[in-house]
Amino acid sequence: MEVELKDMIEDLESLKQSLSDPSLHSSIDKLRLRVENLTNMAKSVPVRRSKVKDMSAEVVDSNPYSRLMALQRMGIVKNYERIREFSVAIVGVGGVGSVAAEMLTRCGIGRLLLYDYDKVELANMNRLFFRPEQVGMTKTDAAVQTLSDINPDVVLESYTLNITTVQGFDTFMSSLRNKSFCPSKEGTGVDLVLSCVDNYEARMAVNQACNELNQTWMESGVSEDAVSGHIQLLIPGETACFACAPPLVVASGVDERTLKREGVCAASLPTTMGVVAGLLVQNTLKFLLNFGYVSPYLGYNSLKDYFPTMAMKPNPQCSNAACLERQEEYILAKPARDAAAKAKMEAEALSATECQLHADNEWNISIVDDSEQDRMDGTSADALPEGLTRELPSADEFQKSSVPGSTDTSVDDLEILRRQLDALNAD
Amino acid sequence: MEVELKDMIEDLESLKQSLSDPSLHSSIDKLRLRVENLTNMAKSVPVRRSKVKDMSAEVVDSNPYSRLMALQRMGIVKNYERIREFSVAIVGVGGVGSVAAEMLTRCGIGRLLLYDYDKVELANMNRLFFRPEQVGMTKTDAAVQTLSDINPDVVLESYTLNITTVQGFDTFMSSLRNKSFCPSKEGTGVDLVLSCVDNYEARMAVNQACNELNQTWMESGVSEDAVSGHIQLLIPGETACFACAPPLVVASGVDERTLKREGVCAASLPTTMGVVAGLLVQNTLKFLLNFGYVSPYLGYNSLKDYFPTMAMKPNPQCSNAACLERQEEYILAKPARDAAAKAKMEAEALSATECQLHADNEWNISIVDDSEQDRMDGTSADALPEGLTRELPSADEFQKSSVPGSTDTSVDDLEILRRQLDALNAD
Repeated sequence: MEVELKDMIEDLESLKQSLSDPSLHSSIDKLRLRVENLTNMAKSVPVRRSKVKDMSAEVVDSNPYSRLMALQRMGIVKNYERIREFSVAIVGVGGVGSVAAEMLTRCGIGRLLLYDYDKVELANMNRLFFRPEQVGMTKTDAAVQTLSDINPDVVLESYTLNITTVQGFDTFMSSLRNKSFCPSKEGTGVDLVLSCVDNYEARMAVNQACNELNQTWMESGVSEDAVSGHIQLLIPGETACFACAPPLVVASGVDERTLKREGVCAASLPTTMGVVAGLLVQNTLKFLLNFGYVSPYLGYNSLKDYFPTMAMKPNPQCSNAACLERQEEYILAKPARDAAAKAKMEAEALSATECQLHADNEWNISIVDDSEQDRMDGTSADALPEGLTRELPSADEFQKSSVPGSTDTSVDDLEILRRQLDALNAD
Repeated sequence: MEVELKDMIEDLESLKQSLSDPSLHSSIDKLRLRVENLTNMAKSVPVRRSKVKDMSAEVVDSNPYSRLMALQRMGIVKNYERIREFSVAIVGVGGVGSVAAEMLTRCGIGRLLLYDYDKVELANMNRLFFRPEQVGMTKTDAAVQTLSDINPDVVLESYTLNITTVQGFDTFMSSLRNKSFCPSKEGTGVDLVLSCVDNYEARMAVNQACNELNQTWMESGVSEDAVSGHIQLLIPGETACFACAPPLVVASGVDERTLKREGVCAASLPTTMGVVAGLLVQNTLKFLLNFGYVSPYLGYNSLKDYFPTMAMKPNPQCSNAACLERQEEYILAKPARDAAAKAKMEAEALSATECQLHADNEWNISIVDDSEQDRMDGTSADALPEGLTRELPSADEFQKSSVPGSTDTSVDDLEILRRQLDALNAD
């Protein structure tokens, strides 16, 4: 628009010069003023933020990464900037996938691959992310528009396709294999696949692709009544694949499209989907940046605010051939894994001894133990700056002692535990 | 902009008529064409969706409420459209408050009151909601801009003020008292206050206002290390107020502004804040629309995916005078509460008997039991349409039986329960 306005000023100037009657010059000047006003109006249309070369921890209002880099000073993450090296694929850009994409974009993920074949509808407006003016656009196009405005540093790749078709599946597979973003990376070209689809068929397609490619992925889902959801980590060969166990999200015997055609639609809420997206991306950050405990399965029952957890081993009778291959490889690699674990333990023991030897520590050099147990229990508690205390007790503290300010909790807990024990013993 | 372009066309026409030299007419026509092109460009700027008079459950792509009204057919909510009668005040439009406001807006809440004094900065971009082009705007203005585009049906009131100043507190109080939106409402003009502020002083101001007005509210918070958070329900006189118990979010002895000035900033993540906002608004929906269990306190420890719960009674030695008044009123109202509860139980018993008497039920009239226990355990499970099954077992089922598909879970559970019992017995 600015180019057109500039051209118009030039046209007005040349017209003015060709006018013989000077009394008409004022009309031209008036028109020129109008165009200048319009130019100013057009300029007030938002400009995008420029790219940021390096993530800085500097605390200034203009730094979009200051609050993320602060995770290092707070002792939560060792090297936050590594996030720029990672590629995450998000399959399904709906109520969960779009919010997951926005969270990863705002966290400054290196590269996002987005897959969806659907268009934005007004019926999607009860969930976060899409805006009414995007109705009619493909979800991938609308997502790229919004996400590139939010953070131009993220490399966005979008695929408007259905992964359950033969051609869509092939493109999906080759896009995951493409290693041009980080040629030195082992395995595929992506670090994690997030499944945010809403049907069984698409989940089975993601499962097939990830089993074939030996690709770690996370599953997510929200129930048809909108009030429960879950996330699940799937490592081919090591954990149950989606075909190993009867799926946890079931629309038994009824096709979703049939439901829709008959004028029945599933319910959805921005709350449940926002919580599931948040838990999914939090698990993703923990997995990629190596902090906290990566949950193998986490459920969310919002009616009771109840969060079940569990872990599932692969099924040796799984119907998926690629899963069986990965299981075999995992078993064969056991001696190597054991040796690596032993070497790591020995190295850590040595570090601990060295720490003892240099107890005065003149240069204030500390050797940080990165074993999982320590990351979970110790590091972050010790690393808070002076004056700040932790908001919640750690799970261990909480379970060991009774709840402060509530005298009868331990009695209730005992009663609940006794009933649970009885139920388990009765099996 | 369209008005200016229309004026310009008129100016060009009158100029054309005053030109004696017809050879210059083509220059004017060329300019006119340019203005017409600009008019078309200006028109392609997104138009907002129109208001919707009544919430419809019709399953068409153009219905922004179809997936919410489906909560009724799924048996989760009895009357979803009641949401249009409610007013919710959100204090603090930051990482949690802005997302909570967006969720309530997309759910079609009747009226939202927003309070914040801060401006949008690039440093906020690591959390959801605000966009880089809004940098420099007040958070309230930017929020109203985004929210009114998303859902023009919601009545938005914004207050750019600091509630911890004397004048700000007065305006806050009178805005809560204003009953013009729903004059028949008992108590104040709002149904719930959500505190989404990031400091102790502001929380104490919300606490003071709600104790004085006998206003139910919910507290929320995220820890400085960005990896924990909580929500809490506060009913003056009935539960602990914010001054009754030592606050759970503590920056002990250190002022946040001091921290910021010294070049230290707290960490934040879109994930944790998104989860806390989701849990907060889910609790709000359960509270307003009368379904599920409204949590008195729910914590979120993201490093361990651990969600502590508890309930706190008011402190008879609370330092807040208004809290003590509400406590006294609550105790005095006990006989009336007991009588009401008894009458309700008797009415329910009568309904049950009547149901038995008319077992054939020719007109298919059902008397639904709205006691809390039934809402929590029964209704929704029975009400799912044929062919749909629940994603997660209810908490009761889950605790009674072992996890399906995981053969060694019961042994692990037994071991965990035994250790928890030992820990509790050791107290």
